[in-house]
Amino acid sequence: MVNFKEDEHLYNLNHSCAHLLAQAVKHLYPEAKFWVGPVVEEGFYYDIDLGDKVITEDDIPAIEREMKKCAKDAKNIIRREISKEEALEMFKDDPYKLDLINRMDEDETVISCYSQGDFTDLCRGGHVENTKLLKNFKLLKLAGAYWKGDSKNKMLQRIYGVCFDTPEELEAHLNELEEAKARDHRKIGKDLGIYMMSDLVGRGLPMYLPNGFTLWNILENYIRDKEIKRGYVHVQTPPLGNVNLYKTSGHLEHYKDSMFPIMEVEDEEYVLRPMNCPHHMVMYSNSLHSYKELPIRIAEIARDCRYESSGSLKGIERVRTFCQNDCHIFCTPEQIESEFKGVVDLILEVYKELNITDYKFELSLRDPEDKVKYHQDDEMWDLAENKLREVLKDLNIDYVEKIGEAAFYGPKLDVQIKPAVGNEVTLSTCQLDFCLPSKFDLKYVDSDGSKKTPVVIHRAILGTLDRFIALYLEMTKGNLPLWLAPKQVIVLPVNNEYHEEYANEIYKELFDEDIRVELDNREEKLGYRMREAQMRKVPYSLVLGDKERDNKEVTYRKYGSEEKVTVSKDEFLKLLKEEIKSKGLK
Amino acid sequence: MVNFKEDEHLYNLNHSCAHLLAQAVKHLYPEAKFWVGPVVEEGFYYDIDLGDKVITEDDIPAIEREMKKCAKDAKNIIRREISKEEALEMFKDDPYKLDLINRMDEDETVISCYSQGDFTDLCRGGHVENTKLLKNFKLLKLAGAYWKGDSKNKMLQRIYGVCFDTPEELEAHLNELEEAKARDHRKIGKDLGIYMMSDLVGRGLPMYLPNGFTLWNILENYIRDKEIKRGYVHVQTPPLGNVNLYKTSGHLEHYKDSMFPIMEVEDEEYVLRPMNCPHHMVMYSNSLHSYKELPIRIAEIARDCRYESSGSLKGIERVRTFCQNDCHIFCTPEQIESEFKGVVDLILEVYKELNITDYKFELSLRDPEDKVKYHQDDEMWDLAENKLREVLKDLNIDYVEKIGEAAFYGPKLDVQIKPAVGNEVTLSTCQLDFCLPSKFDLKYVDSDGSKKTPVVIHRAILGTLDRFIALYLEMTKGNLPLWLAPKQVIVLPVNNEYHEEYANEIYKELFDEDIRVELDNREEKLGYRMREAQMRKVPYSLVLGDKERDNKEVTYRKYGSEEKVTVSKDEFLKLLKEEIKSKGLK
Repeated sequence: MVNFKEDEHLYNLNHSCAHLLAQAVKHLYPEAKFWVGPVVEEGFYYDIDLGDKVITEDDIPAIEREMKKCAKDAKNIIRREISKEEALEMFKDDPYKLDLINRMDEDETVISCYSQGDFTDLCRGGHVENTKLLKNFKLLKLAGAYWKGDSKNKMLQRIYGVCFDTPEELEAHLNELEEAKARDHRKIGKDLGIYMMSDLVGRGLPMYLPNGFTLWNILENYIRDKEIKRGYVHVQTPPLGNVNLYKTSGHLEHYKDSMFPIMEVEDEEYVLRPMNCPHHMVMYSNSLHSYKELPIRIAEIARDCRYESSGSLKGIERVRTFCQNDCHIFCTPEQIESEFKGVVDLILEVYKELNITDYKFELSLRDPEDKVKYHQDDEMWDLAENKLREVLKDLNIDYVEKIGEAAFYGPKLDVQIKPAVGNEVTLSTCQLDFCLPSKFDLKYVDSDGSKKTPVVIHRAILGTLDRFIALYLEMTKGNLPLWLAPKQVIVLPVNNEYHEEYANEIYKELFDEDIRVELDNREEKLGYRMREAQMRKVPYSLVLGDKERDNKEVTYRKYGSEEKVTVSKDEFLKLLKEEIKSKGLK
Repeated sequence: MVNFKEDEHLYNLNHSCAHLLAQAVKHLYPEAKFWVGPVVEEGFYYDIDLGDKVITEDDIPAIEREMKKCAKDAKNIIRREISKEEALEMFKDDPYKLDLINRMDEDETVISCYSQGDFTDLCRGGHVENTKLLKNFKLLKLAGAYWKGDSKNKMLQRIYGVCFDTPEELEAHLNELEEAKARDHRKIGKDLGIYMMSDLVGRGLPMYLPNGFTLWNILENYIRDKEIKRGYVHVQTPPLGNVNLYKTSGHLEHYKDSMFPIMEVEDEEYVLRPMNCPHHMVMYSNSLHSYKELPIRIAEIARDCRYESSGSLKGIERVRTFCQNDCHIFCTPEQIESEFKGVVDLILEVYKELNITDYKFELSLRDPEDKVKYHQDDEMWDLAENKLREVLKDLNIDYVEKIGEAAFYGPKLDVQIKPAVGNEVTLSTCQLDFCLPSKFDLKYVDSDGSKKTPVVIHRAILGTLDRFIALYLEMTKGNLPLWLAPKQVIVLPVNNEYHEEYANEIYKELFDEDIRVELDNREEKLGYRMREAQMRKVPYSLVLGDKERDNKEVTYRKYGSEEKVTVSKDEFLKLLKEEIKSKGLK
């Protein structure tokens, strides 16, 4: 989807359209005061103070009509540069603009404003030349936004919109938005009974419903079994810790804003953990280690909790508590290359089995000029960065290098994915860490008897299970492959009176074979029940009537197909088992 | 093990021995001041203030010798009743006794004290007649204890001991204590690498090591699969919640002392959840329910967090965060009987498969006289209590009735188990609840179209997984059946030079068959490695030498047996798989 901030012309067009919106609102609501109207990735918005008045969806058409009218006036959009004094005089009745003017840097002696007909706004630009270019716009949504993002301040009304050069472009974009909405995991998650949210339980705290937990549990076992087969050990550590743990790791100093408040317990302080690395460091240090034991790969589906502002929460993609598919690999410097390779190999294997194809690798390196941010060991950095490059080259992997994007503790490889709505997110990650092991004074005894500090590789394949489920629902549009589908088969007797017994028999046989099956014998018409099964995207609907009962057969319809196929019970079970085993891959 | 509080004679004997201890300490440390010296389940103790002096293990023999001397003096233990004024005068230099006297009830006009030779103590009794009866005692341990249990107060020194009539009884008791120590899950948990604790991570926050998590994960999957087969649905809800959730449920009012401190987040308050019932109530209320859907059994291996004082923490039996094998069954009043029966049946099935034999059932009923504690609905109570009795009778289960032990919200059935050390604990529970569903305004639509409130059954089979593992390690002394053993087979090449290749081959074959196998090819003698495998209680040790390699055989030794058996590779694998499948039960 287009990013309105990245294309200069679109940027200016939308920026001017924000002014057009403000102009129209001013005509309709003369008491309106305006805060800021920027261009963002998804278009433009304007934050407006209407006093006690509330703009609702119903008011939007009138505003759009007024905007059209203003656009038709075909006024030039004229830039003027004025002094701070002039600006203060010009906006003397507008506390919001005065606030902006007074917060400008001291050296910004010239201030720009833009006028179009009867409307003038304080603005740095850029804009298009004339309002007549602003024909193809659409106001998209209304939201509340605290002034300056601070919940102690007044709530302003925010109106979002987009503007394009042509009606075709606008229409294509609106279609794309509709599609994204349909693919949004918040919609699919609801339709499929994956999760629920409740304000009584709390914001950003997802509750996984039976279908959601079924999917979760299969994914959890899948990735854990795979890791165990690759020599990982799995552990379980608690979702909170003594504050001293995060003093030792340095997180308390650098990460406090993303942590939940500290809890005092007896004479100690505890905190919900934002990440579980420190727990794994302590576990490593629980016993002496010889170089012969390394690499040690401590893995956990680990519950973490982070404070995210309520405004930034998003379904199960961005939440306040989540479980990471985490692992810390403790290894010697010599093992970095093979361990890194093993992680990338695992990522590729998992993506293949899950049929994930739309992603990109980013290798984040240090900025060698930045001596402040980066851990001071050029030799170590060069060595590590070159090793990572080599592995990626060996594996023939396309990737982008991001200079200066490395964590302060080492270089990292991320896999980036675009969700249905909003910014790119990281799915998998593999990060070298030269710092944390020292902070916890971790050691291993090398072959020469000397004590050395291991390197740590932080890695996550499915990222957090919560976010993974969000992204996966969007990638698949909720059409989960059979092995992951919470309900695999739905049994539909044509008529309860005549076919329920056979339906029960089939249901029981499948259930006993560990097929996730449901019997829908409600007193509803077959067509109705069939449509509902399709809406719930159950992979197989089984229709059982006279013929099926008499011949001990089943007639199945696959989700998304109109074709009805009749096979024997045994054949059907065999077909299911094969499809589950192959994960639906050819 | 004997409970010193339950046998009147033993109680008096130990009470007098506490005085004997104080008398001896006073002789050796004239500056000593005494707080209280009660009899507890495990014997007696005395809390002593020695100013800056510290009594260590090294001082115990001298104190015991002085106690023997005092006992030999054969002084009568004489009770005297005095007025409060006399008492205040008698103990005027002793701030602790003055505190006790001043805190006595107003109507307690007569105060008793007991004297034996040169020692007099304020005491309610009872005691034995003469110190010569106090011959067979033993001081067992030293601990610190805050005055009045409050960490803001001074730390006193607590000395524990036991006293018996005969040296034989004393010896038998000390042997029992030794055995209990060897069976204590804190020892076995360490020997088998099940879990670790770390003050840096925090008190009462267990970290499950790879072996422990392997056991945990098998148990978790075992009980969940069993529940799913019985028509439970599993969900996942977050380990914290908005405080309003616990206001609605009433926990905040009644349970606050056992909860972690409240965390303020934006303009809301959050708290770590002490139990997950409210989350499940909210989940039930997420959709409309017809009577046809009931019973709905919402189950979860649910993470909860409770504040326990650091003094009461005990290995993984009593911790500050744990996972419950929880379920809430939402049903109609008519379904109580069959659901209760189903739960008891599941308990019995699980106990049988896990070979748990030493337990007792307790049926806790209301006290019909207590109109304050119990929810006012005599008809409902009578009906429910009688149904529970009937089910237990039908199932031919022995149980004890406990009048007045029911929760305020309904009757319950508990299964009690005695750990190696300390008080009886509840393993499984099944509780009827007539209250919580109303608090959350839960409804179902009955067959006549009217809205009714469901009954909730709270139940846990393995209790908390943490506590279950503790108890199970103690029951089995760490000799876990093959299907639960974290490591099932250890492969020992006789000589690395000649047998490592074959050992590797066997290792790989077993690993590929999902056997939890380890290869011990360290440069250590076979006997040494064999002993270590026995210490770790690995069920099968495989010894591989020339003969085994040449014949493609293995020689195994079962844990606890001296016998060595040689079989083909395939036979061995078959034997393992059968034992795993049968859970080691005949």
